[in-house]
Amino acid sequence: MTESNHMKQLRELLGAAADLHAASALLDWDMRTFMPPGAAESRSFQLATLEEAEHDLLTSRRLGNLLRNLERETRDLDPDSDSFRLVAKVRRQYERDARTPSSWVRRNAHAVAAANTAWEKARAASDFRIFAPHLQKLLGLKLEYLTFFEPAAHPYDILLDRFDEGLTCGALEPLFLRLKREQGAIIRKALEKERPRSEFLNGSYPAAKQLALTRRVLTRMGYDWKQGRQDRSVHPFTTSFGLSDVRITTKVVKGKPFSALFSSIHEGGHALYEQGIDKRYARTPFADGASFSVHESQSRLWENLVGRSPEFWNYWFPVVRNMFPENLGTVSREEFLAALNEPEASPIRTEADELTYNMHIILRFELEKSLIEGKMKVTELSDAWNSGMKQLLGVEVRNDVEGVLQDIHWSMGEFGYFPSYALGNVISAQLWDAALKRIPSIPEAVAVGDYAPLREWLRTHVHVFGAKYNTAEILAVATGSPELNPDPYLKLLNRKYC
Amino acid sequence: MTESNHMKQLRELLGAAADLHAASALLDWDMRTFMPPGAAESRSFQLATLEEAEHDLLTSRRLGNLLRNLERETRDLDPDSDSFRLVAKVRRQYERDARTPSSWVRRNAHAVAAANTAWEKARAASDFRIFAPHLQKLLGLKLEYLTFFEPAAHPYDILLDRFDEGLTCGALEPLFLRLKREQGAIIRKALEKERPRSEFLNGSYPAAKQLALTRRVLTRMGYDWKQGRQDRSVHPFTTSFGLSDVRITTKVVKGKPFSALFSSIHEGGHALYEQGIDKRYARTPFADGASFSVHESQSRLWENLVGRSPEFWNYWFPVVRNMFPENLGTVSREEFLAALNEPEASPIRTEADELTYNMHIILRFELEKSLIEGKMKVTELSDAWNSGMKQLLGVEVRNDVEGVLQDIHWSMGEFGYFPSYALGNVISAQLWDAALKRIPSIPEAVAVGDYAPLREWLRTHVHVFGAKYNTAEILAVATGSPELNPDPYLKLLNRKYC
Repeated sequence: MTESNHMKQLRELLGAAADLHAASALLDWDMRTFMPPGAAESRSFQLATLEEAEHDLLTSRRLGNLLRNLERETRDLDPDSDSFRLVAKVRRQYERDARTPSSWVRRNAHAVAAANTAWEKARAASDFRIFAPHLQKLLGLKLEYLTFFEPAAHPYDILLDRFDEGLTCGALEPLFLRLKREQGAIIRKALEKERPRSEFLNGSYPAAKQLALTRRVLTRMGYDWKQGRQDRSVHPFTTSFGLSDVRITTKVVKGKPFSALFSSIHEGGHALYEQGIDKRYARTPFADGASFSVHESQSRLWENLVGRSPEFWNYWFPVVRNMFPENLGTVSREEFLAALNEPEASPIRTEADELTYNMHIILRFELEKSLIEGKMKVTELSDAWNSGMKQLLGVEVRNDVEGVLQDIHWSMGEFGYFPSYALGNVISAQLWDAALKRIPSIPEAVAVGDYAPLREWLRTHVHVFGAKYNTAEILAVATGSPELNPDPYLKLLNRKYC
Repeated sequence: MTESNHMKQLRELLGAAADLHAASALLDWDMRTFMPPGAAESRSFQLATLEEAEHDLLTSRRLGNLLRNLERETRDLDPDSDSFRLVAKVRRQYERDARTPSSWVRRNAHAVAAANTAWEKARAASDFRIFAPHLQKLLGLKLEYLTFFEPAAHPYDILLDRFDEGLTCGALEPLFLRLKREQGAIIRKALEKERPRSEFLNGSYPAAKQLALTRRVLTRMGYDWKQGRQDRSVHPFTTSFGLSDVRITTKVVKGKPFSALFSSIHEGGHALYEQGIDKRYARTPFADGASFSVHESQSRLWENLVGRSPEFWNYWFPVVRNMFPENLGTVSREEFLAALNEPEASPIRTEADELTYNMHIILRFELEKSLIEGKMKVTELSDAWNSGMKQLLGVEVRNDVEGVLQDIHWSMGEFGYFPSYALGNVISAQLWDAALKRIPSIPEAVAVGDYAPLREWLRTHVHVFGAKYNTAEILAVATGSPELNPDPYLKLLNRKYC
């Protein structure tokens, strides 16, 4: 069937919006990697203008008219066809975005750019008070945003839905309660165990070699360097400017010689997802992940279930020992692996191990919810953070950089995003479980540095669909059931740590 | 006087257009520095969308209405005031751009992106035939562009005007004839002289040290690294994303150890211009050079009149000899300077010395004119180029990379741009002459590495005005006369080479 004129017009409009979005993403990438400091103010104008132009397109009366015509035209199509799904997806986004006035979008973009700069300054001074007025402004904008929508069961639901379609506090709270209880019990047991030898992680690991290692691992994972690149930034991230340009960043952390590696495997997992999306979906809203949770499941699967496994290090330990003979010459693979997997309650989320990670998320979720409900003031956040960390993980937070200032998300105005990380862990185990049931030889392949069987299973069961499907639909395709199920995740943790 | 509502609306519209332009420029910078090769096609879509959005804004009926209102409101203002000048400048651009349909802009942007990629491929294979069909397409688009305008005395005048307001073939041809005759005579005399010792330029000069030298020199010139950065690209260029982010690129050329330095001084001259523009003019059409010729006068002034002078090397030669003791340990400053200034007829424009440089430009001008007049076919260009080089400079061109493929400009669809380079040489000498009349101690300051007197004179007499004034007006402010005058330039060449 040839495409109707309306469908062609829709694709053209969505293509232009995607181009503007890609340009914003490049300006943002540049801001976080290479931009000179004096350019911060003008960059914030540029980002605001691009975001407004994209928003104007995606809320235009023209798009509304096209959608009405196309809903008539596609009514009788297979509801699983790309065309039917595309119209439905754009309709959902249109209904959401058209409620957001472009003046709010512009003010928010300005505030985000300023907050981002303030966040970096506050980190340099380790002083939350520098960032607090900006966070207050972003929170005010977010509360204003909520007023554009019909009241939900909980106002936070409206924010969750942006990152994971249909997700609610009602679904999240019991799941998080169970994790808090069962995962909390595993954590307590694991932290009681005798600590393995790990002094060899304290030596000097030259940054250039750490980065060379990340490139070798990414290459073997199947990251396509002809459609991406890796740079350094304060906070590692993955971004894409179309499906053929998916970039990652990493950082070298003093005293944590394998932080750059694990952050690269993590971002590499995100990047394989984007690089694996069907190229037919370029310049459409399908050129994205199913949800932030599913996106995070890919990074967590590669980072934790692959990257921290004995099989992974069966291949890589000889390589790494060869690269760092002074540090690892007298260390066995088993000692190395035990040290990498040593459970430790850290104040930093991105440095947290897979065991304690979710507790960091649950803290942020509870704080965000209190802020949105008006039960907590921004000025109280630093103290609440520190006492929450003490309560959940027994960790003393020494300063704001180690505490409330550690993550970039709030400076981007991203409230409702963090729960995706915990769901990502849960989903990663569900997918891993399903992949192993279908291809039991995956661990053997990983043990010889061959990631193709796993990667291709993920590609055909998750990546290729892009954002055509949502979380529940991807779970149905990949695992046979649409339900979020923490059993595989808790089982993996239990087996590994108890 | 407070600004009228219309003026505020004009500034807002121009600001948004400037933001879109800055985003295009960043996408272009990224394309030429860091972009992975697989992204070429999607990048061309993005550039086309941004350029179309900017074009739509700058040719909108809304802008037309604002201009009509503002022309009434500003009628009685001082004709030299910013407001009066801004309205007049935007009117001129509006009249020009409104004649260009956005469909042409989009097709042209696509063709440019594809041609740029083809140009790089053609260079890799040293085969003009790979690039020719793309050049043919760009030429066709340019001829179509000319049909949008009232016929001029010569169709090429319409292209010249884009880069230098009011410049015509009628003015250019006699100037170029005089340069061909008088500069040609100086070249013949100079090339007859005995060649100085220069074997020390053939050794190995490590790239990292070459780049470190460029950074030291740029820093002393006054390039502001907080509002810029330097990267590497195939063809060095300067670009800006607002007045607070002016970036340059350079390249290291094997066998030409000071090419990176001179290209950096050249781009540094462009960058000082942009960094010196009054910050009040940010996000307006004044945030630009007076013309491409005046822009080029800044780069040529720093590169040739400063960078190749005995005074410059009085300060830098000891530094450079210290950096490269194996190459320069037994070389005197005078020998070094003589080797750097040795006239040589090179096939490559960017490697040409100041003596032979204009001949390269005159060749391109004549070829472009023939293409536009339809007197030459694109397929004949490689041969015509090679025989032109033989005739003008006695140079044998060995292959297309050394010949017709050497410059990026045609792959960007930039016809009518090259004459700016020759005018830049002429104007650089006019400005240098005027600066020395006013501050005779400039050479003494240069001799101790102090560029502040020269830079500040240029800042207050050229840079600060941005594009508020055109070439003639800048000449009037800086030299006392609006006329292009080749006398200072020919006098400098005569004194140096005869």
